[in-house]
Amino acid sequence: MSTPAHQIKRRVEFYETDMAGIVHFTNFFRFMEACEHDFLRTLDHELHGVVEGLETGWPRVNATCDYRAPARFGDELTVSLFVEEVRNRSVRYRFDITKGDTLVAEGRLSVAHVAMTEDGIKAVPLPGELKEKLDDLK
Amino acid sequence: MSTPAHQIKRRVEFYETDMAGIVHFTNFFRFMEACEHDFLRTLDHELHGVVEGLETGWPRVNATCDYRAPARFGDELTVSLFVEEVRNRSVRYRFDITKGDTLVAEGRLSVAHVAMTEDGIKAVPLPGELKEKLDDLK
Amino acid sequence: MSTPAHQIKRRVEFYETDMAGIVHFTNFFRFMEACEHDFLRTLDHELHGVVEGLETGWPRVNATCDYRAPARFGDELTVSLFVEEVRNRSVRYRFDITKGDTLVAEGRLSVAHVAMTEDGIKAVPLPGELKEKLDDLK
Amino acid sequence: MSTPAHQIKRRVEFYETDMAGIVHFTNFFRFMEACEHDFLRTLDHELHGVVEGLETGWPRVNATCDYRAPARFGDELTVSLFVEEVRNRSVRYRFDITKGDTLVAEGRLSVAHVAMTEDGIKAVPLPGELKEKLDDLK
Repeated sequence: MSTPAHQIKRRVEFYETDMAGIVHFTNFFRFMEACEHDFLRTLDHELHGVVEGLETGWPRVNATCDYRAPARFGDELTVSLFVEEVRNRSVRYRFDITKGDTLVAEGRLSVAHVAMTEDGIKAVPLPGELKEKLDDLK
Repeated sequence: MSTPAHQIKRRVEFYETDMAGIVHFTNFFRFMEACEHDFLRTLDHELHGVVEGLETGWPRVNATCDYRAPARFGDELTVSLFVEEVRNRSVRYRFDITKGDTLVAEGRLSVAHVAMTEDGIKAVPLPGELKEKLDDLK
Repeated sequence: MSTPAHQIKRRVEFYETDMAGIVHFTNFFRFMEACEHDFLRTLDHELHGVVEGLETGWPRVNATCDYRAPARFGDELTVSLFVEEVRNRSVRYRFDITKGDTLVAEGRLSVAHVAMTEDGIKAVPLPGELKEKLDDLK
Repeated sequence: MSTPAHQIKRRVEFYETDMAGIVHFTNFFRFMEACEHDFLRTLDHELHGVVEGLETGWPRVNATCDYRAPARFGDELTVSLFVEEVRNRSVRYRFDITKGDTLVAEGRLSVAHVAMTEDGIKAVPLPGELKEKLDDLK
């Protein structure tokens, strides 16, 4: 079992539940994104930054999640991020969402690194320093 | 009883409910905003348009809602908009949210008309044509 | 190209966008669920119904989405549902989300049919009539 | 200036922003609710508990918010709760949402204490111990 590159804790809020009494499935993707952003912050990477004068961002290419066990209001969840693949213009993260020893959900986000050019949104290489850090954390 | 200036229908979605089995209270504000935007569309007003070369928008100054009866998954709600006050740089709307003959919620949104100037966000006069239309619909 | 078993239209709301100016990726899963529920309604299947005295529901087992093109505030999207697989206790749907001729996103929801028994949540067979209808629409 | 009865910190998440680049106004109500629930947890009050065999809850009677300044992605907000009024069957909280020294929003939630009786939802007296604690914190 590998070591996560990053972890955050999340207490489940009331507004994250649905009438089935559990966390609505779409919110797990929000937990993953929150963890991803917190992770990039620790790497001193400015999200929605500027590279060579162009605004950059990280649109999602794919998002997927397997649901293993329900999570409920007030549960304290741990979101663990693993750097699964680092390519020139994209990254794939894996996430484990756990409650104590129970695996609640397992997901993946594949994200592209893009810049807003005059010709529209275009995939651009990851900043070299960031790519190195991500490769080290794989 | 006055006539609404605009109405939309909304079927309550599963993801709009919470573990109490009813629509989460914050979603009524989303229903109101959806109705406001649909209304402005019927007036040919471009939301987030451009006035004299400046990007404009409608940030909220106040939002309030009285909750009268619960709404549940699958309920078909009617959101009725009333133009309550039209000022030079702001508008106040009132909304009735009903389910059949039952008043579910009654809310208000006070919104400012602003432009993104070099000195930051600044309240600016409503476009004359829009102001006229809104005054007529009061 | 197969015919969708069901379709809904969705106008993108302001609150469904994020600071990148596009629909937040998690909302596409909400569009899919809205389409799934509307579909089941047309089959006279009561969501969160009762089978042999037990409350039933459709928790998600997996959700996945490929993002092809951005969608923006005010866009009118079409969500098309395809019944991809029908098993005894679960169903897999595929969804195409389009804006005019542009494929915006393509997703899948795998959902289990469960009942709340005394021993907890348990997968149970689909009602026979529903299974038949779903099989016919594959 | 009175002392808040409770405070929480919230980092603004990407999915809480809208295309205007700021926190969507409805999310401030979610911040308030998160603070209210965290507060009740510190008083050992079980939300959605059971009083004399009946399930209880805290539906909102009114929610209101004045927006003073925008909040953006990554901002660390402080949500301060003040117990403004304690009645037999309801409570009114006031909330200040600040970013450093800047007041971002000021809101109020009026909530009823209810039980799910055989005759439907009915307002019931606050548990005596909770009422005492709330009165002390006014």
